[in-house]
Amino acid sequence: MPNQPTEHIVKSYDDERARLTSEILRMGEMAAAQLEAALDVVERRDDKAAARIIANDEAIDTLEQEISQDVMKLALRGPLARDLRDILAALRIAADIERIGDYAANVAKRSTALNLAPPLPYTRGLTQLGQLAVRQVREVLVAFRDSDPDAARRVRAQDAEIDTVYTGLFRELLTYMMEDPRAITPSTHLLFMAKNIERIGDHATNIAENIWFQVRGDEPLLPRDKRDFTNTVS
Amino acid sequence: MPNQPTEHIVKSYDDERARLTSEILRMGEMAAAQLEAALDVVERRDDKAAARIIANDEAIDTLEQEISQDVMKLALRGPLARDLRDILAALRIAADIERIGDYAANVAKRSTALNLAPPLPYTRGLTQLGQLAVRQVREVLVAFRDSDPDAARRVRAQDAEIDTVYTGLFRELLTYMMEDPRAITPSTHLLFMAKNIERIGDHATNIAENIWFQVRGDEPLLPRDKRDFTNTVS
Repeated sequence: MPNQPTEHIVKSYDDERARLTSEILRMGEMAAAQLEAALDVVERRDDKAAARIIANDEAIDTLEQEISQDVMKLALRGPLARDLRDILAALRIAADIERIGDYAANVAKRSTALNLAPPLPYTRGLTQLGQLAVRQVREVLVAFRDSDPDAARRVRAQDAEIDTVYTGLFRELLTYMMEDPRAITPSTHLLFMAKNIERIGDHATNIAENIWFQVRGDEPLLPRDKRDFTNTVS
Repeated sequence: MPNQPTEHIVKSYDDERARLTSEILRMGEMAAAQLEAALDVVERRDDKAAARIIANDEAIDTLEQEISQDVMKLALRGPLARDLRDILAALRIAADIERIGDYAANVAKRSTALNLAPPLPYTRGLTQLGQLAVRQVREVLVAFRDSDPDAARRVRAQDAEIDTVYTGLFRELLTYMMEDPRAITPSTHLLFMAKNIERIGDHATNIAENIWFQVRGDEPLLPRDKRDFTNTVS
């Protein structure tokens, strides 16, 4: 059986690739679950649960490092053009998921500062924005699982909705701050939490663009509208 | 001359590595210069210069993509353990520089929103914070150029200074907002700009940690204090 070793290597390469994809999906689901938990913690004003979310972020960071190492080991085994795109896309997608986890942990962290002040009547907008981001993260993971560039393009188009809701929330928070100076500090925390969620939308968009790049190569995607309109609020 | 082809490949690999290092350094200097220009634009309230900074960011993004491709091509040629660390470190450092460029462009972008309101008397603190970040970026690039883990560790330790100045600025801006409702919107922009600069410090720290990882491997660095204390401001 002279060619058995070769077959073994080939099979094992495919196995490794499949394992890598499932690790990235697992990491992505962890990040989506962290964001959901963070939104829940804001509503319930639960500092202990917030501390758990912050601690959980380390598991996502560790997974990202393991995935990077696995990707590089895989890279050193299959130097084909399509593989090169796969490898770069996998590294970038893992890095984007890691950032999504960071932002979810930041939302949890800021919620503990919010809990030092009386409850705000207007955290609902943040939850709504967060739910859009959770949906976007889950949908882009499905597009990654299915290597589906058209699904990825649809997720990317949805980011405009997040940007619109974010800009509305930003303006709304400014008016609360102007009406009541005691609202300024907690509203500032909400502004940063909203910005964190808006950034999660951007990272989901990056993942969508990397899925496109992975499958379609250099074929250009239409340029996107800019992401954060609040820098024109005056 | 039977061994000339081998020598040729080896030489060319080293050449490629040297070229990669100089490309990353060039990219890093572009990001540092962008941040300096953005700070200058805040002081001078110059929307046209801000627009140039925002446009320049694309060159950094393009360079990051080229570097990633070059790194991967290099990876496929030298599968040694130290090379694997080099490759991962190079990819991560390029990604961190790209983010620094983004944050510098964001500072420029927000400055145009500031210019819609009368000049604020307290942008000086932002400039001071930004100058610390510029210094940190330049110093970490020198540590990268010299593959100097001890210099990298010193840069990392400096991040505490940025965090302290940032937290002080955050508190200061909150008091201005409470004193004068008209200050709320422009101060909010300054808060986000300060946060962008604080994040640049974090990315310089990431680069420092990657230099350590690249040279020392898994030898652990002492854990750092947390970065942003404003989430405990109440």
